[in-house]
Amino acid sequence: MRYATIRHAGTTAAARVDGGRLVVLDAVDAVAAMASHTPVKAVTELDPATAEYLPVSPRPAHVLCVGLNYRDHIRALRRPEPAFPALFAKFASTLLGPADPLVLPAVSEQADWEAELAIVIGRPARGLDPAQARSVIAGYTVANDVSMRDWQHRTSEALQGKAFDRSTPLGPVLVSPGALDDARDLAVVCEIDGQVRQRGTTRDLLFRPAELVAYISRFLTLLPGDVILTGTPGGVGEETGTFLRPGQVMRTTVESIGTCVNPTVAAAH
Amino acid sequence: MRYATIRHAGTTAAARVDGGRLVVLDAVDAVAAMASHTPVKAVTELDPATAEYLPVSPRPAHVLCVGLNYRDHIRALRRPEPAFPALFAKFASTLLGPADPLVLPAVSEQADWEAELAIVIGRPARGLDPAQARSVIAGYTVANDVSMRDWQHRTSEALQGKAFDRSTPLGPVLVSPGALDDARDLAVVCEIDGQVRQRGTTRDLLFRPAELVAYISRFLTLLPGDVILTGTPGGVGEETGTFLRPGQVMRTTVESIGTCVNPTVAAAH
Repeated sequence: MRYATIRHAGTTAAARVDGGRLVVLDAVDAVAAMASHTPVKAVTELDPATAEYLPVSPRPAHVLCVGLNYRDHIRALRRPEPAFPALFAKFASTLLGPADPLVLPAVSEQADWEAELAIVIGRPARGLDPAQARSVIAGYTVANDVSMRDWQHRTSEALQGKAFDRSTPLGPVLVSPGALDDARDLAVVCEIDGQVRQRGTTRDLLFRPAELVAYISRFLTLLPGDVILTGTPGGVGEETGTFLRPGQVMRTTVESIGTCVNPTVAAAH
Repeated sequence: MRYATIRHAGTTAAARVDGGRLVVLDAVDAVAAMASHTPVKAVTELDPATAEYLPVSPRPAHVLCVGLNYRDHIRALRRPEPAFPALFAKFASTLLGPADPLVLPAVSEQADWEAELAIVIGRPARGLDPAQARSVIAGYTVANDVSMRDWQHRTSEALQGKAFDRSTPLGPVLVSPGALDDARDLAVVCEIDGQVRQRGTTRDLLFRPAELVAYISRFLTLLPGDVILTGTPGGVGEETGTFLRPGQVMRTTVESIGTCVNPTVAAAH
């Protein structure tokens, strides 16, 4: 099953992607539809081309990200493999729809891309081991952890480069773990104006999704809708001093899930 | 005015601290009562000794903290004064009532105290300068950014030592900036079992409250109820390798605001 979250009738709704159709469901978002134990009623159908797509989990209590988590990237930087995942937080206010314009902040010169596989939690989770953790993952989606490098590197904490309003595309669909072989080997790609800048595979993840969920669940209770960004492969802009400019198109793809297509625009001032 | 947030009639409510009385108000929490432009109706009175106090801002969209922000502490560590505040995030799920038991996690051996002045936001704020920022501060309260040092120091990011469920006492009251001379010179004290471990003054703050609010508002839209912890003075446990143990009482005080009194208890397993 593939579920999107859309704006519909003045609120949010889940929509099932069903071949070329978009079936609006009686559920508040993709996570609720995916987690439902009973079939969710269809409300209407929409043209997939004109629907307004929201972040696939629109109001998570927790958004966590992992720093350096791709083995190829770690090797390229000649760093040792970390013993623990370097976790930092984002706020729900950072999330952006998968087709929305990405406004480049006037206060930053270094907006950079980070294509990522994202985990979405379906059930409360506390103190799990990795074998248990698989069962609380509602599904996977696509994220771009767009980072303002000039702000990120001001201090030892990444947060301020990662917390800009509406800077993190998330979507377009939530896909169940079973349909993705637990995201074991999916290509993760970022293209800017059609040029491939990042191309990694989740096979290279150091801390795998179930491990991340289990690890985080040792210190906080994960809740339905929570989002975990699993890290980004090599090829980010700061490696070559290249950053996003207004008027570009950023395409973020995870194989077998989908693509976020976000045009970049200058801030109004 | 001094407002608490309490559990009342199955939900949350603001309560005005009025001499020895606690007047329950027709407002969902202390922030709503403080920010109201019209007088808030009294509902009933409670015995202050038996009320159930909640985190004074019970459901913030954003909780931000500042690392090293006391000049005396920076000097003691022989560090240079940072050019930018080292900000990291907490989740609302970390907040704890000002009189609640502090459960020491079974997975940490190094639960440590950090007494702090906390800012609570009263109005949406985006792109402010420090002069404007003063006007969006609803008031100040007391926090203890209890930190699991063994987890905090696992990676370069502090988050995982700071994000344990219900680890951050916040309260007991919200006090307006005007009543505190803008928190210019307030003692910040932490006592463990009656022994003073930290005693600083907000006079020593490197980045002051209005500066912090203005700085943060350059990258995210602050919302009513948001909480900013302003940093902790010297005297934390890790300086001497002393950490919290079950059966202690942690008292966290900011002068002219109040005291959080949290007994420590061992986790059930």
